[in-house]
Amino acid sequence: MARVQARVEAALERFLPAAGIAPQRLHDAMRYAVLGGGKRIRPLLAFAAGEASVGEPVSADPARLEIAACAVECVHAYSLVHDDLPCMDDDVLRRGKPACHVEFDEATALLVGDSLQSLAFQLLAEHRLSDDPAVQVEMVKILAAACGSRGMAGGQAIDLASVGQPLTVPELEYMHIHKTGALIRASVALGARCSNVLAPGQLARLDHYAKCVGLAFQVVDDVLDQESSTATLGKTIGKDAANNKPTYVSALGLARARALAEELREEAQAALSELHGGARRLAELADFIVLRKF
Amino acid sequence: MARVQARVEAALERFLPAAGIAPQRLHDAMRYAVLGGGKRIRPLLAFAAGEASVGEPVSADPARLEIAACAVECVHAYSLVHDDLPCMDDDVLRRGKPACHVEFDEATALLVGDSLQSLAFQLLAEHRLSDDPAVQVEMVKILAAACGSRGMAGGQAIDLASVGQPLTVPELEYMHIHKTGALIRASVALGARCSNVLAPGQLARLDHYAKCVGLAFQVVDDVLDQESSTATLGKTIGKDAANNKPTYVSALGLARARALAEELREEAQAALSELHGGARRLAELADFIVLRKF
Repeated sequence: MARVQARVEAALERFLPAAGIAPQRLHDAMRYAVLGGGKRIRPLLAFAAGEASVGEPVSADPARLEIAACAVECVHAYSLVHDDLPCMDDDVLRRGKPACHVEFDEATALLVGDSLQSLAFQLLAEHRLSDDPAVQVEMVKILAAACGSRGMAGGQAIDLASVGQPLTVPELEYMHIHKTGALIRASVALGARCSNVLAPGQLARLDHYAKCVGLAFQVVDDVLDQESSTATLGKTIGKDAANNKPTYVSALGLARARALAEELREEAQAALSELHGGARRLAELADFIVLRKF
Repeated sequence: MARVQARVEAALERFLPAAGIAPQRLHDAMRYAVLGGGKRIRPLLAFAAGEASVGEPVSADPARLEIAACAVECVHAYSLVHDDLPCMDDDVLRRGKPACHVEFDEATALLVGDSLQSLAFQLLAEHRLSDDPAVQVEMVKILAAACGSRGMAGGQAIDLASVGQPLTVPELEYMHIHKTGALIRASVALGARCSNVLAPGQLARLDHYAKCVGLAFQVVDDVLDQESSTATLGKTIGKDAANNKPTYVSALGLARARALAEELREEAQAALSELHGGARRLAELADFIVLRKF
């Protein structure tokens, strides 16, 4: 994990516009929002999916995985910058630092998010990610659909609309499948397509893994938001409860939310059974996501 | 022109998520921001560029041009929605209607812009735009670069930073080449690549045409902002002067700004001379852009 995280950090450093290039404030702010923070869960999933194979272990070219990993991380970073804006979740703390609009200003933060989204697609299009350009076009389509109004941005809209509403567990699931799940699924899908060794049925099982892991991630987030501290998480805790936002903990209680995360971890790992070595790194990431303390 | 505008309007209507689909408020707002307004200059340029050819007239498949045209128009609409937000230009009127964040709310407008950007890339990736998928990957790259921090979003950052600064004409040009020029050039570049009949040198000349037309567009905008009325333009006029923003009129005076627009029109049309029939529709669009009254 540390090796992949360091590699992705170095790649992001390289792919982001250099700090001295005009418009300088925007580029400084883009670097601030992306570099030096975060667990890099999505890049880790992309790299691990690139190692998933049937029979003989075949791993995707790390230089290609790096691009896919940076693209999904740019989208993730953009979503955090926009979500923290005053008109959205109005949060001032992110990854242990002042949120982008606090460190810079709102207009710059808006443009940071907009530019990071463009950069993600630029990365997917200006490097070779597959021997078959048609697969690369498919990768753009996967990421675009995951970002859009029927993916991540749509999930955020549902989230905003649900403030103060007591949601049922299926409604919560529907929201999170969009808000965080879509990009996590895209991370796995893009990583897997960098190696291009899996049949459609196997890609579908990987996608089921990603769907379970994405939901588990959110359930664990809700549990940690209840149990942990602002210092440990590097973001404001207890905010969802304070904002009267529905969470898995408010819907299920702490014990049942923990049990649900555990079930999702098992379901995710079961989906990997046909792959070589149970796709070891993906299985380990499911452990990491569910058992993490921050 | 009317035929292409109607065709693009119908295509946008079809490609935008239907109004009834969840999340409904977001989809309603996306449709509000895109449909039923605007001159559709960028789609017109994409269609006209698709007709540019050498020797025998060869026109790109209109079904492909439609996709490219809708993609650039989605990006343009997203940029208007974000630019109108209170933290940016803080404008309440757009295309003769309340701005998106006024009709809906700021959070929704933010997500509308984000989702329209994703939709643009989704359109370029989920339809066939070229017989060669590698050309399609290149089209994604062209649009992404035009949108990003060294394109349109960067231009908006420069614009924000220039409020209250008396810019020189080269500095103004630098700002506008990014802010509006990048997307206008992408519109021509994407349209031309739908037909795929031009050699690199000819594509470069088309790009020079687009660069001139993009600047002329902005110069004329500044002239109209001084000369016309809010009712005619459908947006708040005199705002740049009120906000102490540099314009071509403030830098050059009205008469020299008009003369500059005229020079740019001639330079744009000269760039078309080697193309079949002087690429008649592109030449006419240069006339339209410079001679328009709204």
